[in-house]
Amino acid sequence: MAAEIAEQPTAWRRLLRDGTAAIDAAATRIRAARPRFVLFVARGTSDHAALYGKYLTEIVLGLPAGSCSPSTVTVYGVRPRLDGGLVVAISQSGSSPDLVETVSAARECGALTVAVTNHSDSPLALAAEQHIDILAGSELSVAATKSYTAQLLALYLLLTGVGGEHTGNAAELPELAERVLSASEPIAVLARRYRFVTRMVVTGRGYSYPTACEAALKLMETGYLSAHAFSGADLLHGPLAVVAETVPVLAIASAGPAGAAMRRVLNGIRAPGIDVCCIGDESAVNAADTGIVVPTPIDERLSPLLEILPIQQLAWRLALARGYDPDRPRGLTKVIETR
Amino acid sequence: MAAEIAEQPTAWRRLLRDGTAAIDAAATRIRAARPRFVLFVARGTSDHAALYGKYLTEIVLGLPAGSCSPSTVTVYGVRPRLDGGLVVAISQSGSSPDLVETVSAARECGALTVAVTNHSDSPLALAAEQHIDILAGSELSVAATKSYTAQLLALYLLLTGVGGEHTGNAAELPELAERVLSASEPIAVLARRYRFVTRMVVTGRGYSYPTACEAALKLMETGYLSAHAFSGADLLHGPLAVVAETVPVLAIASAGPAGAAMRRVLNGIRAPGIDVCCIGDESAVNAADTGIVVPTPIDERLSPLLEILPIQQLAWRLALARGYDPDRPRGLTKVIETR
Repeated sequence: MAAEIAEQPTAWRRLLRDGTAAIDAAATRIRAARPRFVLFVARGTSDHAALYGKYLTEIVLGLPAGSCSPSTVTVYGVRPRLDGGLVVAISQSGSSPDLVETVSAARECGALTVAVTNHSDSPLALAAEQHIDILAGSELSVAATKSYTAQLLALYLLLTGVGGEHTGNAAELPELAERVLSASEPIAVLARRYRFVTRMVVTGRGYSYPTACEAALKLMETGYLSAHAFSGADLLHGPLAVVAETVPVLAIASAGPAGAAMRRVLNGIRAPGIDVCCIGDESAVNAADTGIVVPTPIDERLSPLLEILPIQQLAWRLALARGYDPDRPRGLTKVIETR
Repeated sequence: MAAEIAEQPTAWRRLLRDGTAAIDAAATRIRAARPRFVLFVARGTSDHAALYGKYLTEIVLGLPAGSCSPSTVTVYGVRPRLDGGLVVAISQSGSSPDLVETVSAARECGALTVAVTNHSDSPLALAAEQHIDILAGSELSVAATKSYTAQLLALYLLLTGVGGEHTGNAAELPELAERVLSASEPIAVLARRYRFVTRMVVTGRGYSYPTACEAALKLMETGYLSAHAFSGADLLHGPLAVVAETVPVLAIASAGPAGAAMRRVLNGIRAPGIDVCCIGDESAVNAADTGIVVPTPIDERLSPLLEILPIQQLAWRLALARGYDPDRPRGLTKVIETR
């Protein structure tokens, strides 16, 4: 897991160098199809990349976006009306039978289908009309890290490409990531602080909400914490009651409109004895009890690629500190065959 | 909260008697508009009713369904392309500014808009073209109970009505609910069993996945547990690592295809020392460590209305047992004004 976390800048450089031709071709195909709506289908970590894709779809393309519930196809046998729609399936392995079945059904039902995987010869890559290889290299750790950020990057390039943007803004990311990853002392400090925590609330808004979801999953699957993600707004609709002296808040607050909205949420959470750790923008981190500053990329929509890096490192360190094996979380296997 | 839990059969009878004319009118309007996709917008408990509506949309109507992220409208100022779409907003109070703003924007952008609220003179009811009053009566408890099941019933009647079904299957529900609510001893047994639990995993599939989400929220907001809901399939993609001797599993497994799929998931979870409590079908409950049998309605799509009842009672009892006030969860207010 540590090796794969460290490989991320290299993986992104590979995708930016070797992967953009296929992404541009898929973007051209999508533009020609002029989809009316976009549906994502994914599970686990890949579903958090899908959530990032949903925000890009809504904000960059101004199109409605949702997610397919694979069970409606695989369990209830539904064949929905999908003509005029785009279905994007995201999976590291490309092997999950329920995703393959959902994409095949979507294609039969008239949708343009795109698979985003790390295995170009996988059943999912073959089932979809278009395939995008995230070129992250073999991922062995059960806890997905480099495949997640490579999925984010591929979706950013694809969906801004569909929107007609070709800015080159992503070029600076590998170097920014190297800077974030090399600062190991702040992670060690956080790992000591949260050594005995069993419950945590993670929150973010807008593009940073997928980061909150992925952060919670990493902390669950490697550190065995009950880490629970909420959008900043949803947190105030009930779950806030869980926050207590022994339940710290991990907040993702980057620069930009969503980060500003998040800071308003954090002001509502602050109370004596409530511990808030902030990942993101310097001013937000300074207002929290502790945290890690993450540099703001030129394009704030790319912040999620950087925000997740210190959290991946924290999840790994917490697992080690507690005597768990981050590479072999109990009860889990790398490829999950659900139907 | 206890009074409002007990009122549910009465509230449903009122909706079935006085509310169906408005629901039928909205269904007729939707059928005439022939929407190509359906988007739901809601927060908190109402968002779990929206999730139920999403499954009905996909399975009964065969249409793609998703959710609006209010922040894309309220924080990023997006005006999406929504012509040919149906937007359904769900809110007990009908007062949340972000939902009102999202529905107004959706209406401007060409969507047919429907509001489902418990207050016919609320800003949300007025903002939408069509309004459905769930007629649940005044709800004072912060933890929503009767408004949730009335929302489910209204969505069932609306969406099966759009699909051309007029079966009268819901008529038996109030009596079945009375039977479930009157069996208080099994709840007391569960409340004693889980008296000291701080973390719980809740799981369900298909129509029962919204029940799992709502169960987790009730346990969070009244019992202050870190209760975390996952679809049965997603549980195997990471979060399963959290399940341990001290983290019991609450599984919703009703009769029908999703319940059968859920039983396969439960077989994968069972291990020495792992406690599984099942709510639902008798055979699934018998295979678990403990649980509560819930009668199967004629129409299995109505199971979520009955499944949630013992869980509402459990959340209330756990709060009392722990010395919390279920009517005044810390940090929360009834109407939440997020933007």
